[in-house]
Amino acid sequence: MRQTKKVRSVLRSFPRKRESRGRAHPSLRSAAPGSPLSRGRTEISAEDRLIARHFRPLARHPGAFGLIDDAAVLSVPAGHEVVLKTDAIVGGVHFFPGDPADTVARKALRVNLSDLAAKGAKPAGFLLSLVIPKGIDDAWLRSFAKGLGADAGRYGCPLFGGDTDRTPGPPTIAIAAFGTLPRGTMVLRSGARAGDCVVVTGTIGDAALGLKLRHQPGAARRWRLDAAMRRHLAARYLLPNPRNALAEALRRHASAAMDISDGLVGDFRKLCRASGVGAEIDVARVPLSKAARAAVKAEPRLIEAVLTGGDDFEVVATVPPRKLAGFRAAARRAGVAVTEIGHVTAGGGPRFRDAGGHAMRFAHASYSHF
Amino acid sequence: MRQTKKVRSVLRSFPRKRESRGRAHPSLRSAAPGSPLSRGRTEISAEDRLIARHFRPLARHPGAFGLIDDAAVLSVPAGHEVVLKTDAIVGGVHFFPGDPADTVARKALRVNLSDLAAKGAKPAGFLLSLVIPKGIDDAWLRSFAKGLGADAGRYGCPLFGGDTDRTPGPPTIAIAAFGTLPRGTMVLRSGARAGDCVVVTGTIGDAALGLKLRHQPGAARRWRLDAAMRRHLAARYLLPNPRNALAEALRRHASAAMDISDGLVGDFRKLCRASGVGAEIDVARVPLSKAARAAVKAEPRLIEAVLTGGDDFEVVATVPPRKLAGFRAAARRAGVAVTEIGHVTAGGGPRFRDAGGHAMRFAHASYSHF
Repeated sequence: MRQTKKVRSVLRSFPRKRESRGRAHPSLRSAAPGSPLSRGRTEISAEDRLIARHFRPLARHPGAFGLIDDAAVLSVPAGHEVVLKTDAIVGGVHFFPGDPADTVARKALRVNLSDLAAKGAKPAGFLLSLVIPKGIDDAWLRSFAKGLGADAGRYGCPLFGGDTDRTPGPPTIAIAAFGTLPRGTMVLRSGARAGDCVVVTGTIGDAALGLKLRHQPGAARRWRLDAAMRRHLAARYLLPNPRNALAEALRRHASAAMDISDGLVGDFRKLCRASGVGAEIDVARVPLSKAARAAVKAEPRLIEAVLTGGDDFEVVATVPPRKLAGFRAAARRAGVAVTEIGHVTAGGGPRFRDAGGHAMRFAHASYSHF
Repeated sequence: MRQTKKVRSVLRSFPRKRESRGRAHPSLRSAAPGSPLSRGRTEISAEDRLIARHFRPLARHPGAFGLIDDAAVLSVPAGHEVVLKTDAIVGGVHFFPGDPADTVARKALRVNLSDLAAKGAKPAGFLLSLVIPKGIDDAWLRSFAKGLGADAGRYGCPLFGGDTDRTPGPPTIAIAAFGTLPRGTMVLRSGARAGDCVVVTGTIGDAALGLKLRHQPGAARRWRLDAAMRRHLAARYLLPNPRNALAEALRRHASAAMDISDGLVGDFRKLCRASGVGAEIDVARVPLSKAARAAVKAEPRLIEAVLTGGDDFEVVATVPPRKLAGFRAAARRAGVAVTEIGHVTAGGGPRFRDAGGHAMRFAHASYSHF
């Protein structure tokens, strides 16, 4: 976007400085040598045109100044504060190079929206850093902006500003999202107390299985999946479904919450650690989709991928028993399925017990890039 | 950081999923097969260790929750609003691959601080997306975090949270910075009026010449630069010096302002366009450092690089004549040199006049990545 500092190209092997400089549209370059530079001329760089064409239509919030200023302004309602979150996705790391640009954009935004949801915040807007290689064409950008705009509208989270840059590497999209909530009401990881109920939204493990299918399409047959099941798992990997509709219910009822991005086991363990508690989780109660149930039935060891694979973008929360009925009612009104999977204990971290009551052991509790 | 969603590695050629997964430190992996997963064990991923070691010490603001939660919280003083800005820098594009990690970090933060300064906002904090290739080692990260922490302290702009990811590409650092100011007082590009004085901070063109010297060290001799001059230009490219000390003076006195990142000519033209005004700029009054003066004297055509090269991270502002004395006094108190270089006219964009009074013409008014 404008709102953009360009700090200069220095790599010789990358678009040479002169090559990568914006040129005025030919129709704007007719001034004779020696004529005044700017008299009546409007030189607009290719970068500015890119922004104007694809991203300005998304920046409808008055605080975005139509992306023609250097920064944006966010007003915060009295008695409220701002929740801040940033997350990047990288081509070939977090999405497949051939994934449709509109879903890439939506995933980039949704992984951030998912955190706002879990923290109980209402989306207010986002900033975009879009770092792209030379091969990205106008059709890709159009699709990217279209997906981004669709989700910005759907989640009430408008584009406030951003930055476009070239890279010799893969497309990299860093979004910083911000939300608001009444002061002091952010739902933390650290508020769980012994006796609280542990709940999760939606179904767990679909995206991890969807990713496995991307790598080994043949597994679908082994897992006895029909076409609809395959599509379900693939879609759950391609595009998360953040639970922003549940944010207020979490804020009013949950003692602790976080979104599940790196796997239920590892993420919930982090919540327990931050709260200084343990938990008993009944794995048989962890909600699975019809597709995930079929796969686990066909290949029982897949339960580990389900519980530790990540990319769920569901919410795990703890709710005091006296608030559970209210939470359930609020979730129903929000149209979000919630399932009780266990309860918080005094300490020692979470134990995931299988149907026989045995504590399960996992090779890797959660995903880490490092 | 925690505050971090990891959305799963998918590229087979990039750190394989299993390979890139965090493993507990060997001393934490002693539990016998079949023993409860979490009883008394604290599995901490390599990513969490990286964050704890290098970045948690920087997250001293209470709203950052020591980076152990999913998001941060920013409180905004009553009657104030938030100014938001994001900018990314990419290895081999915005900095040289061999540049010291501490200056890379500081540059990444400072290019954002420069915008907050020009808009009149007081820095409040920032989010960091750090996307790094496998070759980055612990020493690089230590140096990066050290530089970042030094500038966070210097500019009163603490780390609120962030995200660490792997990339098969070059190191990419996207920072989203936020500041605060009294509601409705952000200094826009669009407020310039005919008759206003045009002022710039510091000196113009040093970084552009410093970059030229990085590419052609031999030019120093042609430009008749002594060692101190060479060091001056190199340093000005390596590390911008954002004018945050001037923010309040700009807010109180300037009718419009922006920071100069893509070159004075192109950036000021954008300000004129946003304001619907023209300007007369006296190029002889544009403040040059001793080093830049020497270079331009030796090679007069360098004036184009000085005026259009960018990376200045100085501020260009317009100030109504009746406010100029107050602005000058405030700038003096802030310790920031400001120089009047022309005045705003009714329309037609800015004209840059050489010593003979002729309007200058530039091949490229400013830098663009596209």
